[in-house]
Amino acid sequence: MNHKLYYGAAWYPELWGEAERKHDLQLMKETGINLVRMGEFIWSELEPEEGSIDIRPFAEQIRQLHAYGIDTIMCTPTATPPVWLTHGHPERLIIRADGAVMGHGSRQHVCTNHPYFRQRAAIITEQLAKELGQLPGLVAWQLDNELKAHVSECMCGTCKSLWHEWLESRYGNIGKLNEAWGTGVWSQTYQQFVQVPQPVATPFLHNSSLVTLYRLFQMETTAGFAAEQAAILRRYSPAPITHNSSVAFHVDNEQLFRELDFASYDTYASQANKHAYLLNCDLWRNIKPERDFWLLETSPAYAGSLMSYGEPHPDGYLTAEAVSAYALGAGAFCYWLWRQQRTGSEQTHSSIISAWGKPALGYDNVREASAARLLIEPHLLATRPAQAEVAITYSDRTKAYLATEPHRKLSYRSLLGDFYKRILDMGIHRDLLPEGGELSGYKLLFTPFVHYLSPEYIQKALSFAEAGGIWIAGPLSGGRTADHTLHTDAALGGLERIAGVITRYVYPMEGTGSIGEAFGLSAPLSLWSAVFEPLPGGATVTGRITAGRTPGLAFLTEQPYGRGAIVMLGSLPSGEAGDKLLCALIDHYAARAGVTLRSDVTQGTVVCPRHGASGELWTIVNMDGLGGSVTLPRGGQDVLSGEHVPAGPLTVGAYGYRLIAL
Amino acid sequence: MNHKLYYGAAWYPELWGEAERKHDLQLMKETGINLVRMGEFIWSELEPEEGSIDIRPFAEQIRQLHAYGIDTIMCTPTATPPVWLTHGHPERLIIRADGAVMGHGSRQHVCTNHPYFRQRAAIITEQLAKELGQLPGLVAWQLDNELKAHVSECMCGTCKSLWHEWLESRYGNIGKLNEAWGTGVWSQTYQQFVQVPQPVATPFLHNSSLVTLYRLFQMETTAGFAAEQAAILRRYSPAPITHNSSVAFHVDNEQLFRELDFASYDTYASQANKHAYLLNCDLWRNIKPERDFWLLETSPAYAGSLMSYGEPHPDGYLTAEAVSAYALGAGAFCYWLWRQQRTGSEQTHSSIISAWGKPALGYDNVREASAARLLIEPHLLATRPAQAEVAITYSDRTKAYLATEPHRKLSYRSLLGDFYKRILDMGIHRDLLPEGGELSGYKLLFTPFVHYLSPEYIQKALSFAEAGGIWIAGPLSGGRTADHTLHTDAALGGLERIAGVITRYVYPMEGTGSIGEAFGLSAPLSLWSAVFEPLPGGATVTGRITAGRTPGLAFLTEQPYGRGAIVMLGSLPSGEAGDKLLCALIDHYAARAGVTLRSDVTQGTVVCPRHGASGELWTIVNMDGLGGSVTLPRGGQDVLSGEHVPAGPLTVGAYGYRLIAL
Amino acid sequence: MNHKLYYGAAWYPELWGEAERKHDLQLMKETGINLVRMGEFIWSELEPEEGSIDIRPFAEQIRQLHAYGIDTIMCTPTATPPVWLTHGHPERLIIRADGAVMGHGSRQHVCTNHPYFRQRAAIITEQLAKELGQLPGLVAWQLDNELKAHVSECMCGTCKSLWHEWLESRYGNIGKLNEAWGTGVWSQTYQQFVQVPQPVATPFLHNSSLVTLYRLFQMETTAGFAAEQAAILRRYSPAPITHNSSVAFHVDNEQLFRELDFASYDTYASQANKHAYLLNCDLWRNIKPERDFWLLETSPAYAGSLMSYGEPHPDGYLTAEAVSAYALGAGAFCYWLWRQQRTGSEQTHSSIISAWGKPALGYDNVREASAARLLIEPHLLATRPAQAEVAITYSDRTKAYLATEPHRKLSYRSLLGDFYKRILDMGIHRDLLPEGGELSGYKLLFTPFVHYLSPEYIQKALSFAEAGGIWIAGPLSGGRTADHTLHTDAALGGLERIAGVITRYVYPMEGTGSIGEAFGLSAPLSLWSAVFEPLPGGATVTGRITAGRTPGLAFLTEQPYGRGAIVMLGSLPSGEAGDKLLCALIDHYAARAGVTLRSDVTQGTVVCPRHGASGELWTIVNMDGLGGSVTLPRGGQDVLSGEHVPAGPLTVGAYGYRLIAL
Repeated sequence: MNHKLYYGAAWYPELWGEAERKHDLQLMKETGINLVRMGEFIWSELEPEEGSIDIRPFAEQIRQLHAYGIDTIMCTPTATPPVWLTHGHPERLIIRADGAVMGHGSRQHVCTNHPYFRQRAAIITEQLAKELGQLPGLVAWQLDNELKAHVSECMCGTCKSLWHEWLESRYGNIGKLNEAWGTGVWSQTYQQFVQVPQPVATPFLHNSSLVTLYRLFQMETTAGFAAEQAAILRRYSPAPITHNSSVAFHVDNEQLFRELDFASYDTYASQANKHAYLLNCDLWRNIKPERDFWLLETSPAYAGSLMSYGEPHPDGYLTAEAVSAYALGAGAFCYWLWRQQRTGSEQTHSSIISAWGKPALGYDNVREASAARLLIEPHLLATRPAQAEVAITYSDRTKAYLATEPHRKLSYRSLLGDFYKRILDMGIHRDLLPEGGELSGYKLLFTPFVHYLSPEYIQKALSFAEAGGIWIAGPLSGGRTADHTLHTDAALGGLERIAGVITRYVYPMEGTGSIGEAFGLSAPLSLWSAVFEPLPGGATVTGRITAGRTPGLAFLTEQPYGRGAIVMLGSLPSGEAGDKLLCALIDHYAARAGVTLRSDVTQGTVVCPRHGASGELWTIVNMDGLGGSVTLPRGGQDVLSGEHVPAGPLTVGAYGYRLIAL
Repeated sequence: MNHKLYYGAAWYPELWGEAERKHDLQLMKETGINLVRMGEFIWSELEPEEGSIDIRPFAEQIRQLHAYGIDTIMCTPTATPPVWLTHGHPERLIIRADGAVMGHGSRQHVCTNHPYFRQRAAIITEQLAKELGQLPGLVAWQLDNELKAHVSECMCGTCKSLWHEWLESRYGNIGKLNEAWGTGVWSQTYQQFVQVPQPVATPFLHNSSLVTLYRLFQMETTAGFAAEQAAILRRYSPAPITHNSSVAFHVDNEQLFRELDFASYDTYASQANKHAYLLNCDLWRNIKPERDFWLLETSPAYAGSLMSYGEPHPDGYLTAEAVSAYALGAGAFCYWLWRQQRTGSEQTHSSIISAWGKPALGYDNVREASAARLLIEPHLLATRPAQAEVAITYSDRTKAYLATEPHRKLSYRSLLGDFYKRILDMGIHRDLLPEGGELSGYKLLFTPFVHYLSPEYIQKALSFAEAGGIWIAGPLSGGRTADHTLHTDAALGGLERIAGVITRYVYPMEGTGSIGEAFGLSAPLSLWSAVFEPLPGGATVTGRITAGRTPGLAFLTEQPYGRGAIVMLGSLPSGEAGDKLLCALIDHYAARAGVTLRSDVTQGTVVCPRHGASGELWTIVNMDGLGGSVTLPRGGQDVLSGEHVPAGPLTVGAYGYRLIAL
Repeated sequence: MNHKLYYGAAWYPELWGEAERKHDLQLMKETGINLVRMGEFIWSELEPEEGSIDIRPFAEQIRQLHAYGIDTIMCTPTATPPVWLTHGHPERLIIRADGAVMGHGSRQHVCTNHPYFRQRAAIITEQLAKELGQLPGLVAWQLDNELKAHVSECMCGTCKSLWHEWLESRYGNIGKLNEAWGTGVWSQTYQQFVQVPQPVATPFLHNSSLVTLYRLFQMETTAGFAAEQAAILRRYSPAPITHNSSVAFHVDNEQLFRELDFASYDTYASQANKHAYLLNCDLWRNIKPERDFWLLETSPAYAGSLMSYGEPHPDGYLTAEAVSAYALGAGAFCYWLWRQQRTGSEQTHSSIISAWGKPALGYDNVREASAARLLIEPHLLATRPAQAEVAITYSDRTKAYLATEPHRKLSYRSLLGDFYKRILDMGIHRDLLPEGGELSGYKLLFTPFVHYLSPEYIQKALSFAEAGGIWIAGPLSGGRTADHTLHTDAALGGLERIAGVITRYVYPMEGTGSIGEAFGLSAPLSLWSAVFEPLPGGATVTGRITAGRTPGLAFLTEQPYGRGAIVMLGSLPSGEAGDKLLCALIDHYAARAGVTLRSDVTQGTVVCPRHGASGELWTIVNMDGLGGSVTLPRGGQDVLSGEHVPAGPLTVGAYGYRLIAL
């Protein structure tokens, strides 16, 4: 996979005639497309009648593309089962929490846990694997399409049975479940596993354990489906397997990709949301760190569907997107979609070519980005992304907990996005690391907004601190058990003793006039907060509460641990002052931890550091269209122009990029 | 129908005793009521037990009214089937898209497509027609009541079967449907018509063709029900047939009224929304142009129901409403309702008489409006509304397309209302013309917001241009096929070549900083837009884009066609500047087309031109309570005072009106 | 009950181990808790398998508590039936109006009208009563828990049958129902009671009578369930019976408490909403006036659930709450909850002790409030709350009418709260009196926002006026019949003649520019309003409309009646000017009526007057944290300090309180 930078587009040859397909191939060459993604919605094309499967036309497409020098990533078509699989079979359909049965006519309407679906999915995938799996030009597989993008938990009968089995295998006997969940509250006590409901309509709230675990159960079965499908492909094909996922979908990506070969995702972040675009790069690089990640879908100009449309990217932004993605570790940068949909539901989504075969709005931008790709390709292929020194833990699992207990409508994505943006804007290179990610090589670890910290995670973070790292835990982290209940030994369980603190109170800070002071700054405090007192001989208070309900207590403490330290952040400083305080905190601990992989790059511009045989390579990309600058720590070479650049200020133009070998 | 101006009220004799009815008749005389509408909710009164029908009391009411000099428009009672028709028969009820089954207890709960409903409706209507159809005093029939006011598409089993039949008759075989709808997208391909779902719950969007066509199918069956009912009435009664419809209901009025005899509607526009009041007059006059339209329901003071109420009209506004409606072509102006409801759901709706038999808030206004009617009656009966020179195409069908693809929550009613208001406020007399309306006699034709332009429509518009008219197409017009898919030859299909343009791009303009320049003005551009390049030797660019993603291209072009021209408007200028630019556009083309039927009337006042044997008659009505003025093009006579009025400025007082024979 | 002031907390011994329970008892002593409420959710603990009931552990808890000097209020556990009662029995579950069936997993999911539920509830309650009913330390019973807090009307099959029986017993025959409801409107006429639907989904609004009466029917069956349960308890236990209700629940409290022994409620009003806190005291004191009311649930710091949390009380506010409640008539002031929930759905609700057994945020405040209680206890036990001279009628029944006909989304709670706050802020002592409350002893009676005034109520108010009282009726009062229809003799029925007025119009005032003038002030008028003309020789106009649709007519009139007067208030003055006008009105009539039980206490501080053998006792409490003052009418003694206080100004500090014997 690594001998080129892939530049791809989603293609639907099954929807068009021979003439259009020919035309497409020629235009793909012109625009620099060297990878086509196809097949994710072709089940009814492959198997128009149950059991009559014909894969040959797609083998032919792959061969033709190959003849044009274009590789293929082939998708399994399980996201859109044909009508024969569901007509007259409501029991195979997803049932929403509100009781609505999802019907044929859109996508993702079938419950992926239904045994008959699994059987038919296995057959079609096996046939695809058999007939296409060895074709030259087939360079990768994508499983399904955006699993759980449109649906969250399914409440069908199949899921109900599996839920009971899952609970039984988790708890062994019903008494243990009752004890773990504390079902004595509200007389919920179960006599048998079959009585445990799915989290459907009730007059008031469900038990937190039930709701959170149902989400985790569903994430697990989704990953199980993917693993089952991947195993089938592997029997017939050496091509690596991925899935086009997202941080927005109802999956645990870490779990999902465990049985896959490389990480991929889709993103349609607008330019206004460009930090979310970069967050994706910094995350997916670390989901399967041994391989390049692929960006499998992004729009050439704007997203759209029948119901709405987004704002077109400004001229030039596409190149900045492509260059930054490649420099941050992408092995492929792919558009959705090549040719505008003539029918269906997404006719207003931007494409490279219109439904009538002409260049669409983003066409020239796509060509420009391709040219940029060709310029940077040799330099990126000769290097690998540098590991950051700062890691931020990313947890899809915590979304399950936070959805159950959102306090005041908190969203993990937005909380984490804000937290990430601050570090990005400070010019610190960073990795978003899944909970199970390796911590070796890092100097500073942030663990914000993770309700439940597993023993394994805590152990890993402690080893990290032991070895000299600084671990900053909180806000909102550690106060819940695996079963989404409270600890009964201390607010934050065993972590408190280790961190040298005792949590005096946990309570919501908003509206209490609480002020926190640290690093010479003060700011309002917010969120469901833990306020600390150091244990005797324990932590040092670095942030103190000066007003509100609990003045004198701490919201920020520091405890030496091995060669490193554990920092407890119990609350979230808020507003503009809170932002400054958090920046001071990050700055302080980055310095303490000896973080050097950072720069003074101006906001709106990003530095993407890589390493190669010949040293360090910085790709500097302007993302905001205003141009930017950064101080080079030493002289180097602009590898695109070949010119020497001295240490000191370096500028990039609007949406410009420079590759500097340092 | 034309020997008087009707002044009517809805009356519910079945709800009150003999004493109240007597009292009502006397007060009706006093207030000038000469038309009563009744019967639309009397099914359970007529047929309290299935099969026991007694019409005689209503024959008696009609006779009594006639004795008082009051004519009757009798309604068929099919909007509120008795409980015996539905109790224990959920299969006869409407099912909403969310699955909810509509129950007895309100109105419009029965599916008008259900065969047993059709059978019972035919029987009751036939009985009514037989027993009342020849009565003196019975001057018209109203079918049902506000068809599809409260419900949109029905998802019941009957509709499902009819849908499959309708599709089969439209497409012949399932392969043609698959091809037309492009069901290959998302593997939706159908094997048989019976598999095609109704547009009910799915995880994401339905196919555009399916959703739009389901709406059109339902509109057609509704019109079919009306036609079936009308045919029954005609067998026994010579009285003309109408229906009280609205632009807000889920019907295609053009189709619905095809089999009826004259057009009627209900409106409860508030004074703040007075342009919507006039829009109705300018539309319904053209639905059945050979006959006066009737305004069948408007409130004497304010609308209300259990759930809410509106603001009472200002004193005097009612007279302005009545005079303007009559002058713009109304043959009847009717109130809902005569006597306040004692029970039910609309007790807070304004009435002429209270539930306790006393004059209600609008009583005096009703008398004043009646006096005005008597003054203007001879002059209006001696004239007919003048055809406008400017036509704006009105399409209920386009609502079906726009509901499927609302872009950013666009509403046809509000888009069209704004467009109409601009022309109204410019003092240009105008007709809102249904898609099938005749274009002869017009000089300028606007076709805004019509996603799908039928070949018949285009042909008619071209003939119009050929003959010297100027046709202004767009914005948002012409980009969709009948099946709600995209064209594949060009963005706007065959229209482009004829209009001498090629659409370079279609894309959403919002947020792109796009600026359009025309007529020396510039303005931001908005909406899903088509941007043009003239074909070689083709159109002239009259509006150019000067900033945004596509500077240099055109949003407004002009192509000579026969003795006229085709003007393509690809985008919607927005904001205050956009409003000015659109006014300049209208002004420019009105002048170019030689539009003379306009005046400098001040905003808030309307000129209603009519023709008669003795020449032109202008009714000038002030609608905003501020008074207004207009320059008379020549001297004339104030036909109410008999005085001569010179050419030049003429004023009307607050809510005043003047009739000037020019 | 009256030998001490109870200071209580909700305790869940069934959720914790022996060690925690021991710890709890010790801490309760420390914090001054002398009452424990328990048992409301223990059904599955008591009867883990259907029919196996073991009450003994709870008898043991009561004994242990008693040994610690803590009394118990024991709850019946019917709000949370065990899973065996509903698993496989959807017919026993509540069905919402939208059709959703409420499942196990939260609380209040079972229809309390289902016969099998009633049977099992009777058994468990009887067992509880038998085994605990005579225990020393058991001082009271609470039935169920917050009846209808989470659910409103149930639409299950059981309720459907009961509804038909209820209607039959109300109307006798279907013809009378049809007549009363005016079902002729919209052809709703019923042939048999079994055809009358529950108010479930329809295309438009239901008949007002049906909807309102369904609510009243459900309130009645809820009260019936409570009465049935109370009767069971009484057979075995002398302890008085109550229920923890609220003004927010879907019950008619007056009806519900008729068969119970004393009144109790829960409130979680925030400090910002402190007038609502006091409103509760002034209401519940009068629900069962012969006994102290109990505040059974309030939070030690903030309310919270998985989905949200409130703002913690400011330091000190808890003491102000406790002192004001006791002074206004509370016999108990109880917290929810003692020990934070470890599991379930309310882990973030504030508690006195955390889930890990440590003092939680409000712990110190709870101790402080307890200390205050001990100080005031002898003085309050020696006195009784003084009856106010001003009564405001409170009607849960009117909520049923107003929910059916909310005009512009009116909420009775907020309308009444605003009305109450005005009188509170004017320093007038007041009683909120249920509709059936006795009027003897009052001087001024307000009856605002009561759509339906019963003949009994009107008779009582007239007797009150006859005897010298001033009765102010309106706004919004009296315009509906018991069946929620309009009167047909006059807008306000027979009341008009008695009040010496004729209602000329009823109409909505908003947007009409209506101005009312009275007491030398003028203000905009709002709401659905009745405007009056005095009958010849009838009422005097005290408030006149000076602008809008009906200038010259009255919105406020006064009619002598016996030794008193009837004042009709037809409209609601609004905005700041309206507030002033209403204050002037209250002031005027309070003076006219000879109201003396008022003071000049500053806003945010409340005076709670009591009487005892040795005279009058004023408890003055500052609720806003700003301190306050009041002028003492004569000298007295500060009973806490023992010092004499002279007539004239007296101050209280922030959240302070003083007890002055006058």
